[in-house]
Amino acid sequence: MKSMDALVSLCKRRGFLFQSSEIYGGVQGFWDYGPLGVELKRNLKDAWWHDMIAGHNELIAPAGAPSTFEMVGLDCTIIMHPQVWKCSGHYDLFHDHMVDCKESKKRYRFDQVRGRFVEYQGTKIFVSTLAEIEQEKDEVRRRGLKYFKLRAKNADELTVAKESLTLDQLDSTDNVLAPDAKTLGTLTEPREFNLMFKTTLGALGGEDDTTFLRPETAQGIFVNFKNVVDSSRVRVPFGIGQVGKSFRNEITPRNFTFRSREFEQMEIEFFCHPDQSQEWYRYWRDRRMAWYTSMGLSSESLIMREHHTEELAHYSVGTADIEYAFPFLPEGEYGELEGIAHRGDFDLRSHMEGKLDPNTNPMTVELNEHGKPKYRGSGKDLAYRDEISNEKFVPHVIEPSAGADRAALAFLCEAYTEDEAPDENGKMQSRTVMKLDPRLAPIKAAVFPLVKKDGMPEVAQEIYGALKEHYNVFYDAKGAVGRRYRRQDEAGTPYCITVDGDSLKDKTVTIRDRDSLEQTRVKIDDVVSEIQSRMKASK
Amino acid sequence: MKSMDALVSLCKRRGFLFQSSEIYGGVQGFWDYGPLGVELKRNLKDAWWHDMIAGHNELIAPAGAPSTFEMVGLDCTIIMHPQVWKCSGHYDLFHDHMVDCKESKKRYRFDQVRGRFVEYQGTKIFVSTLAEIEQEKDEVRRRGLKYFKLRAKNADELTVAKESLTLDQLDSTDNVLAPDAKTLGTLTEPREFNLMFKTTLGALGGEDDTTFLRPETAQGIFVNFKNVVDSSRVRVPFGIGQVGKSFRNEITPRNFTFRSREFEQMEIEFFCHPDQSQEWYRYWRDRRMAWYTSMGLSSESLIMREHHTEELAHYSVGTADIEYAFPFLPEGEYGELEGIAHRGDFDLRSHMEGKLDPNTNPMTVELNEHGKPKYRGSGKDLAYRDEISNEKFVPHVIEPSAGADRAALAFLCEAYTEDEAPDENGKMQSRTVMKLDPRLAPIKAAVFPLVKKDGMPEVAQEIYGALKEHYNVFYDAKGAVGRRYRRQDEAGTPYCITVDGDSLKDKTVTIRDRDSLEQTRVKIDDVVSEIQSRMKASK
Repeated sequence: MKSMDALVSLCKRRGFLFQSSEIYGGVQGFWDYGPLGVELKRNLKDAWWHDMIAGHNELIAPAGAPSTFEMVGLDCTIIMHPQVWKCSGHYDLFHDHMVDCKESKKRYRFDQVRGRFVEYQGTKIFVSTLAEIEQEKDEVRRRGLKYFKLRAKNADELTVAKESLTLDQLDSTDNVLAPDAKTLGTLTEPREFNLMFKTTLGALGGEDDTTFLRPETAQGIFVNFKNVVDSSRVRVPFGIGQVGKSFRNEITPRNFTFRSREFEQMEIEFFCHPDQSQEWYRYWRDRRMAWYTSMGLSSESLIMREHHTEELAHYSVGTADIEYAFPFLPEGEYGELEGIAHRGDFDLRSHMEGKLDPNTNPMTVELNEHGKPKYRGSGKDLAYRDEISNEKFVPHVIEPSAGADRAALAFLCEAYTEDEAPDENGKMQSRTVMKLDPRLAPIKAAVFPLVKKDGMPEVAQEIYGALKEHYNVFYDAKGAVGRRYRRQDEAGTPYCITVDGDSLKDKTVTIRDRDSLEQTRVKIDDVVSEIQSRMKASK
Repeated sequence: MKSMDALVSLCKRRGFLFQSSEIYGGVQGFWDYGPLGVELKRNLKDAWWHDMIAGHNELIAPAGAPSTFEMVGLDCTIIMHPQVWKCSGHYDLFHDHMVDCKESKKRYRFDQVRGRFVEYQGTKIFVSTLAEIEQEKDEVRRRGLKYFKLRAKNADELTVAKESLTLDQLDSTDNVLAPDAKTLGTLTEPREFNLMFKTTLGALGGEDDTTFLRPETAQGIFVNFKNVVDSSRVRVPFGIGQVGKSFRNEITPRNFTFRSREFEQMEIEFFCHPDQSQEWYRYWRDRRMAWYTSMGLSSESLIMREHHTEELAHYSVGTADIEYAFPFLPEGEYGELEGIAHRGDFDLRSHMEGKLDPNTNPMTVELNEHGKPKYRGSGKDLAYRDEISNEKFVPHVIEPSAGADRAALAFLCEAYTEDEAPDENGKMQSRTVMKLDPRLAPIKAAVFPLVKKDGMPEVAQEIYGALKEHYNVFYDAKGAVGRRYRRQDEAGTPYCITVDGDSLKDKTVTIRDRDSLEQTRVKIDDVVSEIQSRMKASK
């Protein structure tokens, strides 16, 4: 098992990630990307944008797709009209339940302590509600799923829990042992807490001017649906992609950048005919899974988890999560990288009619004097008319919603490797190497003159200059070449180019591969095209 | 003079820019980028990142630079520790003065109505304080400046104003005719309004948890200065660049995207030895000016304006603005694109010591019980020690701070052209064309089969597929080819590739240049390399 501490320390030491406002003691749930981190994240977002949006060929149906389709981009503001959040349901429904521990004075999300350690007959066991456990076991058996979210440590404990506690008992906080408490039942009753960050528009600052930082980029796409249809010539089926920051006032941010309060999303809203939506749902679920493996995540560490009916968000008629075995999670547990949701026509209808989900608990929705939900939609017609069939319909939506920071973290976790490499004298030494896919690597190549004399720096500088027009390249003339290699290994640089004594005679240099450690001699004139072809092969 | 209305209408119609939350009536000061706009803005930000950061060659001193230097990137959070804003001075000093008009019930920024229309002897004249007018005239004469910020409509009116009103009279709101008022003196006394958007961290939401959306990306760089120095191997002089959103709760957002409440910045903080700071200031001022012309802004529409001493921000020892003649401004007026500020060691010292500017009005700074400013710095040593000279010093900072949205708007304004082009029959017809630099163009090339038969679509689709791996390319098989050209002209697409009857015989296509209208026949196999070499030539 990989050590999370070692990765976190490398991230800070080498400038991948810093705690935000660290000199002032930091702010919980906020992280800055350093010089290496910013290039990694840019590469990640650019790869997503290219693969999903700008590089998409709309004339050929990709493998598994029901038909050809178009993709366009969008970039909306973080602060939107407050009515957006009322109609989307976030104002009334986007909250967590928090509980306070009277003993430890700490605050928790109720759903996190609810399925947590319980003291039973002298041992601590991890349980959730029995209904969930039973259903999950059935699901696993019935569908032959690879994945089983382990909520009890082993089957015996499940039985113990089952025999000892009823559903009601487990749902009550009386039977929960809080993480840092010594006695049972120290938690307060759960209270609602809306996760949107609030702010105020303009200099007056009245109640009407209260608005929110978006908790997701998706709504910006929905409210612009008609603008995009009218201004481009897109026809259903088509997708709109957006990359941007979102904010959630998490009660308990944790696990490095995994649960942050400020984070970046890469979201697609794919609009299709209702009759085809199941097919498109399956297409996007599989395509997004394949994207992560194409970028270097091992399929052994990834799972696709279909949500159970009661796990679904209020709008969703089907959701699958792509999850990754982050090293900070217990063995067998996975953390969400991306959710692919079949949202039906919920969102477009909500912004047309202000419709609220019928399953909504009516207590959480403000009603007007006529007993109707207070917030109505825009009243604008967001239905789509197909120009060939002339059919008019509200498209269904498939939403592949990825977290850029979580993806970056997964790639960092996957890349982190401790192995051995020979030093100058051929003796094996332990090394730390970030085996990042070359597309993601912050620095694509490093150029070293073996020594700072005999014309080597001049040749190296020329190669550096030629490569720098295409890629982020590093030049290093300091110290033993073995140490320079190690520095680049830690940064995840896939290729190191060394100019040595022979370079001046035969006009060649060595290119050393980070992963295979293979060293190849290449003509100086061919270095740029060699790096280009290696980069292309990695794509 | 270009029509702003025509440009705004094209931006909406073709999907460059939409008003945020338009279906809910919009939110003042917030704008979304549509499918064409998002590609334009991405290209702009990528060009900046490449030219300033990732593509910078640290081994060769650029023309005009005192020496070689390094550049690295950073990406910090929008929400930071509140102490950051106390120490930076924004908490106490970043405000505008607002006034309310008792007659029209509208709210204005005092500095905007102060230098505004005044009723004098029956005519409305535009004046500022006499001191400012006189000083500006002297400055213009003395320094032979190209630029003169016209605060009065003509010299006669200046004289009239000078003779008729004293400085005190003009400084008082009693003599101001508010923009939508019929009588003088309807404005209230100016009141302070802090421009930072406020929000609350966490579920408790007490006073201590109040924080702000960053009003500039710069502070994230300063508080990370030590982290960057410790984790990279950068040596002074070096620069840190960042691209990201900032927020200012403007009292009067206006002029399309020019003054928005949510906007994106492209900022560099360049750290250098105090003895060299004046040279670096001049270098960056000139280099940034050259960048805009290299990307297509005409030098006739650009000015460099050095700030007068009393115009300088509280921290600055010298600032120059790069300004553009936006078409929504009166003839002879310019709007800021970028400020290049010599900030001395103000920022690093503020975060070390909590130093406040001595010129600060002490009334606006909260003092502690000992009569000292309440907010101290981090106490961390942010001084730099040069590893060769062993000298320790607090670097001086040169800050080239550009607005990505303003730059995008300037490029759109500059590109908007109404001219004539021949139709299918060779007859000249008026056309609207966005003459964007190819690097900025949202779509690099469009591919048209002349007709949808005889194998032309197949050839066109192949060319489209080959180009799509490199660029955002558009495929269009609908309607008369002349109309397809016009659509691409409006989108700013530099190259249109048409597959016609001859293409199948001689394996060539025409490439039509958007600006020269020249049509060249090129071998099908050479299309990708031809577009690549044209794109490269435009760089």
